[in-house]
Amino acid sequence: MPYYIGDVIKDYNKLVIRTPEAFGKTGINVKIKTRVDDIDPQKGLVRLSDDSSIPYDILVMATGANAARLDIPGADLAGVFVLRNLTDALRIKSYLTEKKCRKAVLIGGGFIVMEMCEALRNLGIETTVMVRGCRPVTRWDVGLTDVIIDELKKNEVSFIPETKFLAIERGTSGHLVLKTDKGDVDADVILMGVGIRRDNTLTRAAGIELGESGAIKVDFRQQTSIPGIYAVGDCCEVFHKVARRWVYLPLGDIANKQGRVAGQNIGGHPVEFPGVVGAQSFKVFSLEVGAAGLTEKEAAGYGFQPTSAMIQGLPVGRPMSSGEKLWLKLVADKTTGKLLGGQCVGAKGAIQRIYALSVALWSGLSIEEVGYLDLPYAPPFGGAWDAIHVAAQEITKAM
Amino acid sequence: MPYYIGDVIKDYNKLVIRTPEAFGKTGINVKIKTRVDDIDPQKGLVRLSDDSSIPYDILVMATGANAARLDIPGADLAGVFVLRNLTDALRIKSYLTEKKCRKAVLIGGGFIVMEMCEALRNLGIETTVMVRGCRPVTRWDVGLTDVIIDELKKNEVSFIPETKFLAIERGTSGHLVLKTDKGDVDADVILMGVGIRRDNTLTRAAGIELGESGAIKVDFRQQTSIPGIYAVGDCCEVFHKVARRWVYLPLGDIANKQGRVAGQNIGGHPVEFPGVVGAQSFKVFSLEVGAAGLTEKEAAGYGFQPTSAMIQGLPVGRPMSSGEKLWLKLVADKTTGKLLGGQCVGAKGAIQRIYALSVALWSGLSIEEVGYLDLPYAPPFGGAWDAIHVAAQEITKAM
Repeated sequence: MPYYIGDVIKDYNKLVIRTPEAFGKTGINVKIKTRVDDIDPQKGLVRLSDDSSIPYDILVMATGANAARLDIPGADLAGVFVLRNLTDALRIKSYLTEKKCRKAVLIGGGFIVMEMCEALRNLGIETTVMVRGCRPVTRWDVGLTDVIIDELKKNEVSFIPETKFLAIERGTSGHLVLKTDKGDVDADVILMGVGIRRDNTLTRAAGIELGESGAIKVDFRQQTSIPGIYAVGDCCEVFHKVARRWVYLPLGDIANKQGRVAGQNIGGHPVEFPGVVGAQSFKVFSLEVGAAGLTEKEAAGYGFQPTSAMIQGLPVGRPMSSGEKLWLKLVADKTTGKLLGGQCVGAKGAIQRIYALSVALWSGLSIEEVGYLDLPYAPPFGGAWDAIHVAAQEITKAM
Repeated sequence: MPYYIGDVIKDYNKLVIRTPEAFGKTGINVKIKTRVDDIDPQKGLVRLSDDSSIPYDILVMATGANAARLDIPGADLAGVFVLRNLTDALRIKSYLTEKKCRKAVLIGGGFIVMEMCEALRNLGIETTVMVRGCRPVTRWDVGLTDVIIDELKKNEVSFIPETKFLAIERGTSGHLVLKTDKGDVDADVILMGVGIRRDNTLTRAAGIELGESGAIKVDFRQQTSIPGIYAVGDCCEVFHKVARRWVYLPLGDIANKQGRVAGQNIGGHPVEFPGVVGAQSFKVFSLEVGAAGLTEKEAAGYGFQPTSAMIQGLPVGRPMSSGEKLWLKLVADKTTGKLLGGQCVGAKGAIQRIYALSVALWSGLSIEEVGYLDLPYAPPFGGAWDAIHVAAQEITKAM
């Protein structure tokens, strides 16, 4: 009989929390507000916080990851939030209303912060993004993050780079004060989007092997180093088809796929998870932002000889254009001639291109082939020579 | 010294006609309003209509194709148009204004007719589409053309199927009368979009071999059966990577690629044109319509064992949905498990999916792999399980 042990189970789509009783009717035992304190793979037992234990034949680790907080004084004050799950979102929403927040400071420049900018500005809240480095979403090329910074400005979001965060304090009038090396910043609410952190205590206790990335090592069937124990989602690694190695890439769609693969294998229908190509996207105000594969820096780190081209093209055929631009960067390997990565930003058509490039990366196409790909051309959706062709041919010519 | 012999040369983008003199300055000789009456491959000569002849080392056939007209009385009356090139478009535009046209009848249901519906309705012209068969754009599945017919209706375009066209006459008050087996239909303007027709006279005279399709047979470098003679564009065949045979597919982006390939080979930089996957798209009012690969019927005709799934999904993640739908059909081969084709229709995100599927077809991916493709997931652009995954997994399960 399958058990699900965890915090609470939420049906995110309907914002309804499913009760353990409802699950019980489907033959699944659900234990909420229960901690697993230890795993004994020898005996096939999980020990729970209420001192009971449950025997298992198959165990699935789906322990996920938590949003990290900066390690500074005051990081836990009321009004300082992280955004990881639905509960976080509901808490932030209530706080904004109850405290009549007028000013938000977002720490970090990842895609969750980018998405939050839009949500906060839609509520009319003064919004400032502060980062330690020079730019937001550093996975994207400088030329592309310039476009993103412009979009933030256009939507009256202040972007402040190169900041050292020192502490958060409660001001005299009840607001928060973010202490930085650039001075004090007042805020009604602070959101930290500074990455994630895994708790490997249980994994280590069970003796499950970790990969180079520090996340749980799995094989192509999601099996860990211990027979009968599987791992899926943000607690484990995934195979990167372009990098040709196991990496840590905690993204929701990957977790979904891993869950399916583990389930099929456990259910006696063996299937292998082919891996990922690092495809990713987000929307910031009216901009579509997408990427897949490796950046030049990542590629060099993995031993490739990257070369690249960046073009500013059109998302539609020239006669249909009303001025929208599309920025596309492609990366290829000089040694093998293969496409290694793509990044795209634009008000329109950027994700369309990353959909195509993701499959090209998945299939290991050469940059020369990418320059001749047959794409569904029509002027409302692209030129007879698509931005993808133009960028690929630029690299081919240079090689 | 290169020669260009043809009708007129147009810079479509700027609506400016480039003069032969302007071309002359770039070292290209241009002869306009000149017919090539004969080709003598033995002597390497083209004979012109002014009785002169030009010697050649390399000859490129780029004779294109013409829009067909129905073979019925009155098909050439003033006010009856085809739409093939810029000149046609300008003529139609002038006629609509000069004659203050209020009612248009479009014969045929191809994508040019679909696109014209939008242009005519934008001008407030009463628009009727009449076809010989049951449906428009028959390359798309019945379920998908239902959506297209709905979109026509929503935009007050009448769609009349199963019509036999008998004649066009000039009515007493100057309007056109289209005689059909369903009675007379009045119109101020009639547009025929009933396919294209090639004039092979010159090709046959030169002894250039035709392929099975009846268009010029070429190899992967665009060379015809006669050494030194190349062919590109709508006059020649192209290799279909999914069908694994040479087909006739006269589309603008393919012609562009063939021109480039011929040019590179002629210029001493040998390159092969990998072929196409039958990727195609058009926009009809607010609908994106795309397809790539083979339909079930085409696949069966080529000896595959097609199976398919059609789903009605969402173009965005469920929490972001405001009701837009996406219809997606995938076709796969039961014998090899390979993806054979995809068709997609929706107000949003349809072309994005066909971009990905085109590359999957290009790469010969299996339907099982398509079910696990890594796509750039974010709720504004799709679900964690994309419509592509859902449809592919449906086929995989059934196989």
